[in-house]
Amino acid sequence: MLPFARVTIVGLGLIGSSLARAVRAAMPTVRLTGYDASADVRETVRALDLVDDVADTPGAAVIDADLVVLCVPVGAMGAVAADMAADLPADAVVSDVGSCKASVAAALRAALPGATIVPAHPVAGTEKSGPEAGFATLFRGRWCIVTPLEGGDPVAATRVADFWRRLGADVETMDPDHHDLVLAVTSHLPHLIAYTIVGTADDLEQVTQSEVIKFSAGGFRDFTRIAASDPTMWRDVFLSNRDAVLEMLGRFSEDLSQLQRAIRYGDGDALFDRFTRTRAIRRSIVDQGQDDAAADFGRRHD
Amino acid sequence: MLPFARVTIVGLGLIGSSLARAVRAAMPTVRLTGYDASADVRETVRALDLVDDVADTPGAAVIDADLVVLCVPVGAMGAVAADMAADLPADAVVSDVGSCKASVAAALRAALPGATIVPAHPVAGTEKSGPEAGFATLFRGRWCIVTPLEGGDPVAATRVADFWRRLGADVETMDPDHHDLVLAVTSHLPHLIAYTIVGTADDLEQVTQSEVIKFSAGGFRDFTRIAASDPTMWRDVFLSNRDAVLEMLGRFSEDLSQLQRAIRYGDGDALFDRFTRTRAIRRSIVDQGQDDAAADFGRRHD
Repeated sequence: MLPFARVTIVGLGLIGSSLARAVRAAMPTVRLTGYDASADVRETVRALDLVDDVADTPGAAVIDADLVVLCVPVGAMGAVAADMAADLPADAVVSDVGSCKASVAAALRAALPGATIVPAHPVAGTEKSGPEAGFATLFRGRWCIVTPLEGGDPVAATRVADFWRRLGADVETMDPDHHDLVLAVTSHLPHLIAYTIVGTADDLEQVTQSEVIKFSAGGFRDFTRIAASDPTMWRDVFLSNRDAVLEMLGRFSEDLSQLQRAIRYGDGDALFDRFTRTRAIRRSIVDQGQDDAAADFGRRHD
Repeated sequence: MLPFARVTIVGLGLIGSSLARAVRAAMPTVRLTGYDASADVRETVRALDLVDDVADTPGAAVIDADLVVLCVPVGAMGAVAADMAADLPADAVVSDVGSCKASVAAALRAALPGATIVPAHPVAGTEKSGPEAGFATLFRGRWCIVTPLEGGDPVAATRVADFWRRLGADVETMDPDHHDLVLAVTSHLPHLIAYTIVGTADDLEQVTQSEVIKFSAGGFRDFTRIAASDPTMWRDVFLSNRDAVLEMLGRFSEDLSQLQRAIRYGDGDALFDRFTRTRAIRRSIVDQGQDDAAADFGRRHD
């Protein structure tokens, strides 16, 4: 039996449109409704035929849903939830895909008192944005973290977990605060650092931008991919997960200072030791199927 | 006419063995000789039949070469050059593939007084090491930076440039100090940051290593690739290009502090502005063929 029969996706960018495609592929009998605040995006989704109905308001989108998945930037979750509150069926489950869970849980609880809320976060994405960039296999082999609320409905959490498993994801459950700490290091800090170094390179006066681009295959280009991610989404992440990000950033800065000092004083042994132990993590990530085993992310060399 | 007829490659790891394969593919009539300080590597290269002759000493390797390319860590260049000095033919050209050019140029000049030296740096590589990891197309579509010495032989520099172009590389000429500044930002700083953050994640006590690995697709895994690069090579790079790396690291740290402050004080506009302008650099890198146009580096999603 399908966990949900009528699914509404609110926000039809990379993640929302991938979710629509994935549901179509894995659960073709599900009745899919979509909504996006942008009329252009709604038009594109109609043209691509990604859902059965594109609604023109959040209320119209949720009116007969049994699952509503909010796929908007985390700072917009509360407002869009408030907009649909009056039309939300009493038995609907509300979930989301936001990258921060404590702040989203609080925003949804405030906007939808009494609703059944099961926040979730599929750890998947690319640097592209918009409904054309989505694809059905985005969640396959990736983890989806479900963060049930204290005192929430355990059956609803099980149905949401089932939903994600059918899309090809593995599901893990944790509490929202721990999620935010884990993602601060595995996702938020890497994005912050990537955005920073790409900006640093852009500002140099001794090295031209054309040189930065030409010789980026030396390592820099790896950072430009996630620094090309959606600016609104990421602004909201850093504002919403401030404390955990600042904590991880503090640790990173201390470690960087230590390596800086080793370089300044020519301490080759300290550098060698640090550079040796990081290899094992890469190996584990590849062994556990979380990255391509091929060299260079499997980039083409031809 | 081929730029060189008898090529010796000293150091048969990822880059040296890729060079051997590329020469075989592009200039099959070239007589190829190889040497590596490791007897195991020499054995592997014999078994893989990557060169015509594997020599057991640097001197024997260079004795009839007209081009010698040193493919060893930058800190080892001077010593290996000294080892082959007595046997180097007077008309041979000595080049290298090191990631730092001022220090290597000085080391080669000191070890090989009177020799014709043309330092070079193909900006290409993967996170893998050793002769099995090499492949013939590694340099195709990548830049090779040639850094002729002041007062050096311009004809030799032209021949080295021709050699790299035949392997599929584009060639740019610059002076060694400028090379070191450009690569500090496009290669050395990215590696230092990647090594740092992977180490930071490894040290956390609130987040388990298993969680770091499982949820690495949120961005972290991108950094683990270059943090899996060869530790000896990278120790030497940071010791050899200290001043330029410290200069770029200082700028990066200032920019990171600025973003840290914006997060702490909730300055969403500052974050949004920074995150918006970095997209253009990614676009230019892809447009100029320096990275895959496909989303997510072209990683497989199936």
